[in-house]
Amino acid sequence: MNKFAMFGKLTALPGKRGELADMMLASGDTLSGMDGCIYYIVHEAEEEPDVLWITELWESREAHAASLQNEQVRELIGRCMPLIAEAGGIKVKPIGGKGL
Amino acid sequence: MNKFAMFGKLTALPGKRGELADMMLASGDTLSGMDGCIYYIVHEAEEEPDVLWITELWESREAHAASLQNEQVRELIGRCMPLIAEAGGIKVKPIGGKGL
Repeated sequence: MNKFAMFGKLTALPGKRGELADMMLASGDTLSGMDGCIYYIVHEAEEEPDVLWITELWESREAHAASLQNEQVRELIGRCMPLIAEAGGIKVKPIGGKGL
Repeated sequence: MNKFAMFGKLTALPGKRGELADMMLASGDTLSGMDGCIYYIVHEAEEEPDVLWITELWESREAHAASLQNEQVRELIGRCMPLIAEAGGIKVKPIGGKGL
């Protein structure tokens, strides 16, 4: 099965990046227990003060899709939404390397 | 010590992305043996046919800098250069998550 990767870009409301990041990191337990999640890392953009980049790697596209049906994940997304001005990202297909 | 992350964007010369990716992946052995490299993953951009994204996570900024002094890495970079039209990326600071 092909692994599934995402680069998500979240732009927080002005000044709210720290609060949004804390909220997403507090979800660590939820994510660590998630089937098929290899990694999920939150980064601050160094050159855009309101931007977070989240890189995710999953065992499969299906494992990622299933996570979005999880009640705790849906609740987390709902809590984060009011702090997010814009959500986007880059569509990528992981093809190899160390750690894949 | 703070971990160090990079999102590198390499635009290959038209039609050369596959060749460039193969070259970078053939370096797997070089990278797997590199001190302090947690992961190094090559991705194809789904919406830009000549673009590769490389995500890297290192134990520290110093470990990454040291890798660039490695003779095999320098030789690899030299081999890839003729296929690359443009190199850029996004500066990020990893702050937490699963797999960090």
